[in-house]
Amino acid sequence: MVWRTILMILLICSGNTMLAQETKNTPPNIVVIFCDDLGYGDLGCFGHPTIATPNLDRMAVEGQRWTQFYVAAPVCTPSRAGLLTGRLPIRSGLCSSKRRVLFPNSAGGIPDSEITIPELLKSAGYATAMVGKWHLGHLPRYLPHRHGFDQWFGVPYSNDMDRNNKGPKGWDAFLEPKFEYWDVPIHRDDKIVERPADQRTLTRRYTEEALAFIETPREEPFFLYLAHSMPHVPLFRSDPFIGRSQRGFYGDVIEEIDWSVGQILDVLRSRNLASNTLVIFTSDNGPWLEYGDMGGSAGLLRAGKGTTFEGGMRVPTIVWWPGTAKAGVVSDLGATLDLLPTFCALAGVEAPPDRILDGSDISGRIRNQEASPRETVFFYRGSILYALRDGSWKMHLRSRPRSGAKEKIHETPLLYNLDHDPSEKKDLAKKHPQVIERLQKIAEAHRASLVEVENQMERVLPKNGQ
Amino acid sequence: MVWRTILMILLICSGNTMLAQETKNTPPNIVVIFCDDLGYGDLGCFGHPTIATPNLDRMAVEGQRWTQFYVAAPVCTPSRAGLLTGRLPIRSGLCSSKRRVLFPNSAGGIPDSEITIPELLKSAGYATAMVGKWHLGHLPRYLPHRHGFDQWFGVPYSNDMDRNNKGPKGWDAFLEPKFEYWDVPIHRDDKIVERPADQRTLTRRYTEEALAFIETPREEPFFLYLAHSMPHVPLFRSDPFIGRSQRGFYGDVIEEIDWSVGQILDVLRSRNLASNTLVIFTSDNGPWLEYGDMGGSAGLLRAGKGTTFEGGMRVPTIVWWPGTAKAGVVSDLGATLDLLPTFCALAGVEAPPDRILDGSDISGRIRNQEASPRETVFFYRGSILYALRDGSWKMHLRSRPRSGAKEKIHETPLLYNLDHDPSEKKDLAKKHPQVIERLQKIAEAHRASLVEVENQMERVLPKNGQ
Repeated sequence: MVWRTILMILLICSGNTMLAQETKNTPPNIVVIFCDDLGYGDLGCFGHPTIATPNLDRMAVEGQRWTQFYVAAPVCTPSRAGLLTGRLPIRSGLCSSKRRVLFPNSAGGIPDSEITIPELLKSAGYATAMVGKWHLGHLPRYLPHRHGFDQWFGVPYSNDMDRNNKGPKGWDAFLEPKFEYWDVPIHRDDKIVERPADQRTLTRRYTEEALAFIETPREEPFFLYLAHSMPHVPLFRSDPFIGRSQRGFYGDVIEEIDWSVGQILDVLRSRNLASNTLVIFTSDNGPWLEYGDMGGSAGLLRAGKGTTFEGGMRVPTIVWWPGTAKAGVVSDLGATLDLLPTFCALAGVEAPPDRILDGSDISGRIRNQEASPRETVFFYRGSILYALRDGSWKMHLRSRPRSGAKEKIHETPLLYNLDHDPSEKKDLAKKHPQVIERLQKIAEAHRASLVEVENQMERVLPKNGQ
Repeated sequence: MVWRTILMILLICSGNTMLAQETKNTPPNIVVIFCDDLGYGDLGCFGHPTIATPNLDRMAVEGQRWTQFYVAAPVCTPSRAGLLTGRLPIRSGLCSSKRRVLFPNSAGGIPDSEITIPELLKSAGYATAMVGKWHLGHLPRYLPHRHGFDQWFGVPYSNDMDRNNKGPKGWDAFLEPKFEYWDVPIHRDDKIVERPADQRTLTRRYTEEALAFIETPREEPFFLYLAHSMPHVPLFRSDPFIGRSQRGFYGDVIEEIDWSVGQILDVLRSRNLASNTLVIFTSDNGPWLEYGDMGGSAGLLRAGKGTTFEGGMRVPTIVWWPGTAKAGVVSDLGATLDLLPTFCALAGVEAPPDRILDGSDISGRIRNQEASPRETVFFYRGSILYALRDGSWKMHLRSRPRSGAKEKIHETPLLYNLDHDPSEKKDLAKKHPQVIERLQKIAEAHRASLVEVENQMERVLPKNGQ
């Protein structure tokens, strides 16, 4: 047993060394695994006591566990816009305080003027695929294959949309969900291939699509964006995962995602692609706490999805690139906004020079243990800047204790030292007025960089229109 | 670099294999590392974002990370009594609702009638040593070497006791502590060898004492109980750790403990003792939240030290025994109360047959992945049963939201499913009256097992007496 382990280690290590030499100058394959509403505290390696995530735990041990990694917004649509464009959604019009995400009756979506990660990587010769939830506009011109993806299999928006009149009313439908209660479509590129989506098998089928793309023989490097629909409510998992988790239904769902990650890393290993593939696992925003034990946990962080407290926007993130990303815990700042410039650097393609980007190239932190260049994080709710972090300090100008709660405007902003106080418990504003002053100036400079653009979120289809 | 790693792995693995064969029938060495007020969320491997604990993280990866492991009480003295006797402190008289721990003016301590882990292991031929904080009575008859330890170096009680009149008043003394503000003595067995203890070097000196004991040449197996004084306030750490942690002062202190663990595991490895040494790392109770960022974090658990919510009594626990303890996350129930019967089983000595023990032998879970036999956990505050857990269910009969808050008596008990809801958010009492009924019966049977004993905590020295 011990010798078999050693042999495996030898094979893996030596394999990696050789491959790393062979492929030194080849741009890496890139896989982004993006969960929906997964909380900071929902993985074993981020401290959950009863959700078993052995594959993610192993990925974290082999790779980098980023503990201060942020999304661009605390809800779906703007978070995804930030990831794919490297720009805060306020710059692309993909945020609003009135309609916080796109809905089936929305007429807006990602503008053609935005340049996405897959568009940039395509220009560097990558094959690009998306599997899973899009949520950046479902009208034809907005779909993934119009914005850089060679192929797409997945759903256009959240899996709780298109609620029909079947099943129990209101939240009760979420307690024992049946996929027939929702009319969510599954697309393959332009075509709807299933409606209602049999959501029970979404995670499994997304995984199969992802594996098929990875295993397709090709010369060029690839980019895969796998955006799981889970664990966004209504929760679903396939048969082998029913009743499997000590954590109950929600745990079953996470454990199927963990299985999926294991499948992907295994195929990368078995196809000798591991040493030249960067895999990033993260989430689009914090847990939807209002759903009780059908939602996740933000661990030690305050509040959850929809809020600009840490629980809403700090997400559990793992970076894996055997032989290149030095294993360990990374507590530098990072953000999904950094992925576009980082991938550009790795692919040897220039990041769009004609626009403001809100991300920085963090490949130095991934590859060489250079400090992350990120110093500042902006926390928007809709189109309003609620808070900002600079270094250790986070200042709240406004806040809501829960997603739907009334807004509080803080005449004297709240100030937390997040390195010392990640749970945002002890307001230090009175003690550090000079920090507030400094952060106010950063906020002002940021606001001055904004240009008005067409709001995509508030565009609604005429009734009965398409 | 890669080859050096492989070589190291080969050496370690092959070394372990040979040793495991050589020492198969020898009782293992046992090391218990017991922290003071370390919270569930304070280690990297339990999800803290900015406290760097690479040695404990590695220990957790090589060993077992127990995520549902409990202490016998939410404060020092009764917790330690539970660990060393395998019995709830209500049975030894080492708990009280009036005086919750022993103080310098206490006259009580661990009764001679109690049988401790080191006494049992001595009877099986072990060398036994204690390093660190005792807190089971400081009058001569109660000291460690009268209760089974061959040797002791450490302090008799908490490092915030014996406050003198130097330095600032009240809590201010804890914000920038100097060791001269307290007159805590250091003992070597009967003798006081230093007073006031230079607390800045306590963690370092405890470690040196522990290493010296481990490295002493001997034929017989050994038992080492290393009970750190840290991170109990006032916080202290030695020079190399000042300003080291991103988490600030508290983080510095934890990172020195992490260093200490690394030293101990390294010497076990380098002396070829690793494969025959069981090391258990844990804490005496939850974090002292009232001290703000000078105290720790309970992670996703509710409340902290002094309470009977999970944050008070569930502690971050790592079990390490290379080649024997199968690596992974263990979410079975366990408790410090289980250590006595477990160590007896491993040492081949009978657990005391003449008394009620509150622990079970969990060596089957450590060695062979058998399910832990523990099903029930009792949560006492002082001498009153506040709550109990059975399987997934925890019922609160009484509670206090914070250690010093007013007691609430729950006419209808609170009921939580801890596997699904570790943060104790959603009271399910109304939905599951039959569970309450079942747990009430367990509580009744437990109460019926109690026998009145002399209370040790309420015995106070006459003024000016010794």
